Amino acid sequence: MQVKDFPLDHVGIAVKDLDRATALYEALAPVKIIAEEQVVSQKVVVRFLQQGDHKIELLQATDDNSPVARFIAKRGEGIHHLAFRVKDILAEMNRLRAEHFELLQDKPILGALNKWVFFIHPKSTGGTLVEICQPAVSTND
Amino acid sequence: MQVKDFPLDHVGIAVKDLDRATALYEALAPVKIIAEEQVVSQKVVVRFLQQGDHKIELLQATDDNSPVARFIAKRGEGIHHLAFRVKDILAEMNRLRAEHFELLQDKPILGALNKWVFFIHPKSTGGTLVEICQPAVSTND
Repeated sequence: MQVKDFPLDHVGIAVKDLDRATALYEALAPVKIIAEEQVVSQKVVVRFLQQGDHKIELLQATDDNSPVARFIAKRGEGIHHLAFRVKDILAEMNRLRAEHFELLQDKPILGALNKWVFFIHPKSTGGTLVEICQPAVSTND
Repeated sequence: MQVKDFPLDHVGIAVKDLDRATALYEALAPVKIIAEEQVVSQKVVVRFLQQGDHKIELLQATDDNSPVARFIAKRGEGIHHLAFRVKDILAEMNRLRAEHFELLQDKPILGALNKWVFFIHPKSTGGTLVEICQPAVSTND
């Protein structure tokens, strides 16, 4: 099964300091802060920057045990994941599992910006942590 | 100076084997191979996958001294850079230099797909290698 509608929703970037990273991206490109939210389950505060059709999600850990803190401790700040938006996340979960991707969740969890999300382990994608997301409520996306 | 037109052109991903990585991305998402090219100056072969409005650039080193080979040796396969497309690359170069970004080239070089490109050192962007590119010849982009 091939899903036609699979746009890049955002690029996630692990940072130590949201404000410092925001200032850098504002200097780099025409971006606009559109949302900020704490995601308790992932122990992060995330800030979304709109940039043309795309979003950049800056992720700052709120705890040393946060996956983002561990990522930074191991690899330094930088690009953390790519997120693709789908219209039927359960069908995608089944499709990707059948394709032998290693999913990090058994079922979608509620992520930032009221989206259902799940992640694919970088081991099964050639090193890239991939998020699949679907808005849980209607949006203009 | 703020440049309004600054879309994400592609996400560059360092891989050990273009064919293996292509197969993974084909299983992951609806992608289509649109070009493959050797970039001698960077000691890489690159393959572009179109995916909706975006491109994924898979980069495979052709030499152990290639920057991509060194990236993989240090960090493993995975996301290597983000590339933004501009309409006036010389103006962007001046603007970004004035913003104190550390540019890796003094002037644009010819990259893959007949684009003028330069890179910004990840040290000055919070860990993300950033490419700025402009088509050297007219395209439908």
